[in-house]
Amino acid sequence: MSTPFYLPVSDEVEVFHAAARRGLPVLLKGPTGCGKTRFVEAMANQLGRELVTVAGHEDMTSADLVGRFLLKGGETVWVDGPLTRAVRQGSICYLDEIVEARQDTIVVIHPLADHRRELPVDRLGTSVPAAPGFQLVISYNPGYQSVLKSIKESTRQRFVAIELDFPPADIETDIVAREAGIDADTARALVTLGRAIRDLDGSPLREVASTRLLILAGGLVAEGLSLRSAVRAAVVRVLSDDPDLVSALGELADAVLPNRE
Amino acid sequence: MSTPFYLPVSDEVEVFHAAARRGLPVLLKGPTGCGKTRFVEAMANQLGRELVTVAGHEDMTSADLVGRFLLKGGETVWVDGPLTRAVRQGSICYLDEIVEARQDTIVVIHPLADHRRELPVDRLGTSVPAAPGFQLVISYNPGYQSVLKSIKESTRQRFVAIELDFPPADIETDIVAREAGIDADTARALVTLGRAIRDLDGSPLREVASTRLLILAGGLVAEGLSLRSAVRAAVVRVLSDDPDLVSALGELADAVLPNRE
Amino acid sequence: MSTPFYLPVSDEVEVFHAAARRGLPVLLKGPTGCGKTRFVEAMANQLGRELVTVAGHEDMTSADLVGRFLLKGGETVWVDGPLTRAVRQGSICYLDEIVEARQDTIVVIHPLADHRRELPVDRLGTSVPAAPGFQLVISYNPGYQSVLKSIKESTRQRFVAIELDFPPADIETDIVAREAGIDADTARALVTLGRAIRDLDGSPLREVASTRLLILAGGLVAEGLSLRSAVRAAVVRVLSDDPDLVSALGELADAVLPNRE
Amino acid sequence: MSTPFYLPVSDEVEVFHAAARRGLPVLLKGPTGCGKTRFVEAMANQLGRELVTVAGHEDMTSADLVGRFLLKGGETVWVDGPLTRAVRQGSICYLDEIVEARQDTIVVIHPLADHRRELPVDRLGTSVPAAPGFQLVISYNPGYQSVLKSIKESTRQRFVAIELDFPPADIETDIVAREAGIDADTARALVTLGRAIRDLDGSPLREVASTRLLILAGGLVAEGLSLRSAVRAAVVRVLSDDPDLVSALGELADAVLPNRE
Amino acid sequence: MSTPFYLPVSDEVEVFHAAARRGLPVLLKGPTGCGKTRFVEAMANQLGRELVTVAGHEDMTSADLVGRFLLKGGETVWVDGPLTRAVRQGSICYLDEIVEARQDTIVVIHPLADHRRELPVDRLGTSVPAAPGFQLVISYNPGYQSVLKSIKESTRQRFVAIELDFPPADIETDIVAREAGIDADTARALVTLGRAIRDLDGSPLREVASTRLLILAGGLVAEGLSLRSAVRAAVVRVLSDDPDLVSALGELADAVLPNRE
Amino acid sequence: MSTPFYLPVSDEVEVFHAAARRGLPVLLKGPTGCGKTRFVEAMANQLGRELVTVAGHEDMTSADLVGRFLLKGGETVWVDGPLTRAVRQGSICYLDEIVEARQDTIVVIHPLADHRRELPVDRLGTSVPAAPGFQLVISYNPGYQSVLKSIKESTRQRFVAIELDFPPADIETDIVAREAGIDADTARALVTLGRAIRDLDGSPLREVASTRLLILAGGLVAEGLSLRSAVRAAVVRVLSDDPDLVSALGELADAVLPNRE
Repeated sequence: MSTPFYLPVSDEVEVFHAAARRGLPVLLKGPTGCGKTRFVEAMANQLGRELVTVAGHEDMTSADLVGRFLLKGGETVWVDGPLTRAVRQGSICYLDEIVEARQDTIVVIHPLADHRRELPVDRLGTSVPAAPGFQLVISYNPGYQSVLKSIKESTRQRFVAIELDFPPADIETDIVAREAGIDADTARALVTLGRAIRDLDGSPLREVASTRLLILAGGLVAEGLSLRSAVRAAVVRVLSDDPDLVSALGELADAVLPNRE
Repeated sequence: MSTPFYLPVSDEVEVFHAAARRGLPVLLKGPTGCGKTRFVEAMANQLGRELVTVAGHEDMTSADLVGRFLLKGGETVWVDGPLTRAVRQGSICYLDEIVEARQDTIVVIHPLADHRRELPVDRLGTSVPAAPGFQLVISYNPGYQSVLKSIKESTRQRFVAIELDFPPADIETDIVAREAGIDADTARALVTLGRAIRDLDGSPLREVASTRLLILAGGLVAEGLSLRSAVRAAVVRVLSDDPDLVSALGELADAVLPNRE
Repeated sequence: MSTPFYLPVSDEVEVFHAAARRGLPVLLKGPTGCGKTRFVEAMANQLGRELVTVAGHEDMTSADLVGRFLLKGGETVWVDGPLTRAVRQGSICYLDEIVEARQDTIVVIHPLADHRRELPVDRLGTSVPAAPGFQLVISYNPGYQSVLKSIKESTRQRFVAIELDFPPADIETDIVAREAGIDADTARALVTLGRAIRDLDGSPLREVASTRLLILAGGLVAEGLSLRSAVRAAVVRVLSDDPDLVSALGELADAVLPNRE
Repeated sequence: MSTPFYLPVSDEVEVFHAAARRGLPVLLKGPTGCGKTRFVEAMANQLGRELVTVAGHEDMTSADLVGRFLLKGGETVWVDGPLTRAVRQGSICYLDEIVEARQDTIVVIHPLADHRRELPVDRLGTSVPAAPGFQLVISYNPGYQSVLKSIKESTRQRFVAIELDFPPADIETDIVAREAGIDADTARALVTLGRAIRDLDGSPLREVASTRLLILAGGLVAEGLSLRSAVRAAVVRVLSDDPDLVSALGELADAVLPNRE
Repeated sequence: MSTPFYLPVSDEVEVFHAAARRGLPVLLKGPTGCGKTRFVEAMANQLGRELVTVAGHEDMTSADLVGRFLLKGGETVWVDGPLTRAVRQGSICYLDEIVEARQDTIVVIHPLADHRRELPVDRLGTSVPAAPGFQLVISYNPGYQSVLKSIKESTRQRFVAIELDFPPADIETDIVAREAGIDADTARALVTLGRAIRDLDGSPLREVASTRLLILAGGLVAEGLSLRSAVRAAVVRVLSDDPDLVSALGELADAVLPNRE
Repeated sequence: MSTPFYLPVSDEVEVFHAAARRGLPVLLKGPTGCGKTRFVEAMANQLGRELVTVAGHEDMTSADLVGRFLLKGGETVWVDGPLTRAVRQGSICYLDEIVEARQDTIVVIHPLADHRRELPVDRLGTSVPAAPGFQLVISYNPGYQSVLKSIKESTRQRFVAIELDFPPADIETDIVAREAGIDADTARALVTLGRAIRDLDGSPLREVASTRLLILAGGLVAEGLSLRSAVRAAVVRVLSDDPDLVSALGELADAVLPNRE
């Protein structure tokens, strides 16, 4: 994979580096599709550390993180989970949307997050000390759920918090053009539409048009679809199933986008 | 199987091909029985790719998609699930009515759907990169549930959305005649009835008469049943259990259908 | 087992045969004890096909239908479930009261019910094509639950629906006399009582006196019990636990039944 | 065990024998402790059949009735459950308080209860035909729950119903004296108290003083306890935890019982 | 362990002995910490029988009582649970706070509690007859839950009931002094405080100061803590987490306790 | 690990030592991050005992505490859990936030907490007596849940209770300076901010700024971050996700903190 592309917006890079020097875990907040994963990839790259990414989900068990016994040749053999692997290697372990996971899954990260810096592996009856360089990063979208309910305070208070948001228009245009492989004018048109949707007052949409959606629409244009079809397929119909909303968003797109076809 | 029969209605074929060229996942929306499965079969045929279809259901686990260990001869042997098979082969994987599945099942498709294009197989401790040609297609019926609840936004925003509906009367008549093996007049009579039922104001029916139902009725006629009996067996009694509704639909059918017997 | 005894009431036999010729699945609706099982047995007999019957219940899993691995001699051995057996043999598979089963159990019958006519066996990683003659029949009682909730529309719309009810008095008398082994007068008395109970206005009974109950009472008479005792044991006390209702039904029975003892 | 002691009250013995001759299953209704188990033991004794008793409970699985595979010496070995044993042997199988069991457990008895008279053993892939003499008996207390909810109608309508109640005073006195090993006067005093408690108007007690409780109190007297202590330990404090009720029942006992100490 | 110390309050010893002679099960009612366990230990000691104690909890399964198969050397080996051990040995089996357990766990004790006196071990396919001397004792706190809901009537009516309460002041002072190893004056002060707390009108405390708490406080005094500190650590802060209540109880303690420091 | 740093606030050390001498279990109450873990580490150090710490969580099973069988080389091998290990060794076992665990997990500690001082290991069929020096310590945060609901009274009444709170300003400043490795002035500024947040009237924050948070912020300053950035990353954004609250806390921080940059 090529070097990840990340343009800093505020002091998020500085805070991450300070946390990394001290081995402190990091909590990434931000809306869907604003670039959290890309930020962590860039940080791992800058710090020269391996990145182990795990997507959280509500049926994830602690064994999915820590490891399990598999039966091989009549013997039970222990296989490290991704978290244990990162702990042994001194890698950055990125738990994406961890609030999806169950409490018991989250709780295994406590001793890693405080001054103990070790991972208890109950099933092995041991504790694995974190190798130098190990760092825990977890992310979530504060707009979705009451995080105070989902993450225990005693876990949350062990983290340094960084808040990401959609980038300013110029940076976002650069990102969309580069990621979708389209010219700057088309990218700017898409970003203008995206920001118009984000600015809708009292929007009934649960989510706004993320940078990711704009890149997707740009990609379809790069494959030869008209801008209108691409925006409908990758933005309008993705943001809503409601016929009235779909129709209103379509009209907004027609008004905002250049009439190039 | 013979070449699947599909008559395009809007730009759905063009969008699918653009998404396929870019390797983007596709979200198919549309009512029950409008032809979503047939559309995907036609696309796979046009693109010359193998199609792997998986029907979603609420107890489907991620192991049902990804694979599991089976015990053979005292050894645990890994057996790929249908999704993993499609990923390795570069096939189209069609997850039909995926919103039926649990969140943890859906979450395994994230890294396949974004720029990573890989399937993490936690139980093997590895990630399978998607072979060229692999494409994910998922379908659901927006009329059934709040999709915004069932599909996570971060999943949904990785897809290109295509919306299908019942075809126009002429195309639907062609489809019913061809699929049921009946003459055009009978097919037209069935389509006329189907559209009459779909147009009922404030209908208490949860579903309208789909193309699939009309084909079914046509099939019974092809087997020698009277049109009246066929419509009652394959349309009226299928659409409702309520005695009053069944009776009202029967009268509507008598009024609309030609009195040929 | 001797040839099943079935007297047609409407066009149910004709519809079943047409569906069978086309290989279409059949949905049997009707109240408890009206003769659904006997009808399917008669159809299988007429068509010269083996009948595989499975009683649905709410904890039935798809493995109960499709099959499972059993551990034999240290090896896992696959054992076909009843549905898989019927699919391979080209038998009629009758899923009795299938709405009792969980959605994931019902969902396995989709590809069998549509034009694919195959049973995916996920655990074997294969699909079993239906042998010629295979036909799916499912039954339920529309009075019990909201079927629209229990059976997914996309399943339901793949079926031809047949509705059964209690037979007319003469046919029911024949059935009761024959099945219970009693004379026509006693059978007629029982049928008269049964119909009187079914006609009760605003009855608080969840179920009415089914043909099955009348046969049961007749059987006790054939064993030498008085008609009065038999009706109380097999009809009155079976229909209710409520002391007042039991007493009222007993008085109704005394009024309707001939005073032969 | 000696010959079970049972004194008939109504025609329950006659009905049971007729059902037994015809191989029909029996449903026993009656309050806690009125003698249902003893009645079944007496019937099995009179008919010269072995009795297999299974106590129902809410976590009972069908495997508890039908059987399961156990791992022995690296091989899975099938072990019949009590129901399967009774079916093979032609015994009476008494499922005590079966409404406690889950629906899927109850459903296995359907094919045994109707004209098929066979027990499908899914895990073996076979059906065990009932040996001559096999008879199913289930019991429940109609005062506890809505039986119409707990037992499916299609199950319930396959049974002959017998209703038991507390025996008349003379018979109950005989039973208490004989079972507790006390003289007739003490037994009569206990029965008088029991009937006084059963006759309390608008009693807040969920259960009344059963024959079983009176036998228990009698047994304590036979061990040398005073009648007053025995009644308090085996009747009053057993019937309620509420201090006021315990005190009121104690006063009732003092008023009814002879002042012999 | 030394001979258990128990001072009788009412006729509880007499009733227990009569029940033991007859082999009848015993139901012990009483508030937390009033001495139920100690009473059973004293009875077992007086009767010269071994005591097997099992603490009930809500996830206890019947296997926890009866036994289970363990895999040893590739063979499944049966290991008796504590109840089975007591049944075979003729010991007293004390099921402490059994209402915590699930119904299916409680149900296994039915055949042990009635005239059958045997323990069915379904998984072994056998029944273990109770050895002479076996006696079942169960306890619960009637103040906690509706016992009528938690214990099935048919179970409850097989037991002799004994009710225990906090002992009179003199006996309680003896117990506290002896158990805590403190002088009679300090013990009396603690008992005076305990009774003052029990007598609080309309107390918002869920539990009152039990004998066990007073012994605990006495033990801290015996270790050199001041009476004030000991009462705060072992009584006040244990009875409540509410700051206002903790403060009010502290003031009550200061008013009641002698000002010795 | 170096000697744990603990400055006593009230008589908590004296009470802990008295409980330790008597072998009594200890209940630690206090808000998140106030130093409960550090207190127990200091007590273990002073008493010269090993400390075994287990973090409670809602899916913790009793096997996680007591131990389990693992399959090794075809044999089941018993592996002690952390609690069993502590019991055998005579260590202090600290169950952190035990109210998170299920009742059945909590219940295993009863016999360890009372005069029996033994751990029943049901799966081994034995009881492990506590070695001299074994002591149980459990902690919870009374502000979170109704402890009276979560901990059974019969468990709770076996413990000596100690209540911890945030330390006085001077002690807290010492702790923050020492733990974060910063100068006293910066530490004092952080403590001043922490206390200002704790004193907010009617705060909508679920938690206040704990000592742990202040140490974290100090750590970032030690790594070169500005005090403003550090406080925002480690205090403000950690305490809330609400944009308004985050902004208000930021302003409070600007007002309270010295303007050093």
